Amino acid sequence: MSTPLASWHPQAAQRLQQFVSAVTDPSHSAYVEPSDRIATFDNDGTLWCEKPLYIQLAFVVERVKALAAEHPQWPHEEPFSAVLSGDLKRLQQLRMPEDVLTLVAATHAGMTQAEFQADVVTFFDHARHPRWQRPYTALVYQPMVELVQFLQQHQFTVYLCSAGGLDFMRVISARAYGIPPEHVVGSSIQKKYRPDGTFERTAELVKPINDQAGKPVLIERHIGKRPILAGGNSDGDIAMLDYVTQRSGASLALLLHHDDAEREYAYDAGAEAALTLAKERPWQVVSMRSDFLTIFPE
Amino acid sequence: MSTPLASWHPQAAQRLQQFVSAVTDPSHSAYVEPSDRIATFDNDGTLWCEKPLYIQLAFVVERVKALAAEHPQWPHEEPFSAVLSGDLKRLQQLRMPEDVLTLVAATHAGMTQAEFQADVVTFFDHARHPRWQRPYTALVYQPMVELVQFLQQHQFTVYLCSAGGLDFMRVISARAYGIPPEHVVGSSIQKKYRPDGTFERTAELVKPINDQAGKPVLIERHIGKRPILAGGNSDGDIAMLDYVTQRSGASLALLLHHDDAEREYAYDAGAEAALTLAKERPWQVVSMRSDFLTIFPE
Repeated sequence: MSTPLASWHPQAAQRLQQFVSAVTDPSHSAYVEPSDRIATFDNDGTLWCEKPLYIQLAFVVERVKALAAEHPQWPHEEPFSAVLSGDLKRLQQLRMPEDVLTLVAATHAGMTQAEFQADVVTFFDHARHPRWQRPYTALVYQPMVELVQFLQQHQFTVYLCSAGGLDFMRVISARAYGIPPEHVVGSSIQKKYRPDGTFERTAELVKPINDQAGKPVLIERHIGKRPILAGGNSDGDIAMLDYVTQRSGASLALLLHHDDAEREYAYDAGAEAALTLAKERPWQVVSMRSDFLTIFPE
Repeated sequence: MSTPLASWHPQAAQRLQQFVSAVTDPSHSAYVEPSDRIATFDNDGTLWCEKPLYIQLAFVVERVKALAAEHPQWPHEEPFSAVLSGDLKRLQQLRMPEDVLTLVAATHAGMTQAEFQADVVTFFDHARHPRWQRPYTALVYQPMVELVQFLQQHQFTVYLCSAGGLDFMRVISARAYGIPPEHVVGSSIQKKYRPDGTFERTAELVKPINDQAGKPVLIERHIGKRPILAGGNSDGDIAMLDYVTQRSGASLALLLHHDDAEREYAYDAGAEAALTLAKERPWQVVSMRSDFLTIFPE
């Protein structure tokens, strides 16, 4: 086996290892039982690239275009109008995650769950990122994938906790991160069970959306335990990071900072409040430029 | 270690063992990978006693009485009026699980989640079943507890899938069945996350209620995989049992029949449709009188 956390700068790797050593050492005051070693990671911008567009938005753009002929009102109605304009600026100004969830709900309602999953599979098979021309599943952050594996090797149960769609993520979470479907927490839509054993997707969102204060709410609903480690990258993750570091006992909150324009993207937009709070909170800011030796898998 | 399934009649135990042997034998055509060995069990009447009242109804009765002085309209309003009457017949005629969920939602709204859990702990510490004068956690079905353990020993992930309250069950699921909080699927209420890291309970139910067609819907939402084994005892479990046996590949659906008036209770009420369907469905009916050597733990 290769060195764990090999894609992290040694100093950053050491900080992570120290935390894991402490919580897994029965003689250490910070020890945590395996059943309580829960870690939750935001997905977009934390485990994989979210620029120039959320990957789920790239997915739904194709479907909006395909269905546009049947919906003559869409060119006059947001967020459909922005999608049909093909204008990257307008797409980037959509409200996230609300607008992408609205788009997915509207464009996939009436489909069965199996049809939706097949659509997602096709997307990942064919779509390529505009800058690197790689499949989107090859744009996961290698250091974060190593961290997920490192935690799992130390009897952590690692959950995805994404504002994006539960069903979208579940199609690739095992392949991309080694996180099985039952460990994905995300925004989702109501489904109807049909007597033939299939599920029909509706356009109604399950409340709450898994963003901001919704993250701890859905973590509590899904897991029923407070995580001891969480990772995020945006203002949508503030509540989740606070929830973790407010526990009594050891905790680790990681805030990924996108500060590497050369190898990925440099942006604080959408993370301004989190980056400001990080100065007074017991969170560790991870600099992608300094702490990541590599960004993407080979 | 004692014999697995020791509290089952040997023939019934053998049928269960044959299924588990087949799905765990890599050379068998029915083999199922450990990651897909999902089992879901209804709770009330399937894993523990639900007579004369749902245990969660017994729990909420105390609280309705305690709060009645603050709610002068309750004596004129169902389901509160039935509870305050103290009339067992009227209590037994409440619509389940809707009415108990309404009662819990109404009587615990505004509490924090921690306060609610403390209330549940107190209930289980002090309440006794009217017939046996035992704590309710001692009224689990010993053969079913053995089955849960037997499955877990064979790398099944076992979930509770109860129409009753998620938060009520989670307090005792690990102690009663060895099922951890994250493997409980149930009906629940919306909560608000507070900046101090606590959750405030509201009176709004999460949709759908985890009953009838809601069971496959919440299994799909929570787990994202179709179980290969399920157990139930009432009409509310029909959709879950169908969902399991409609999968391609091996499956096992158990329908518990309450036919033992002497050692427990004998009733078909609420299970009429399930018992009729069982004659044409590939389900196994478990007779509590014939298949259970013992009912409750010593």
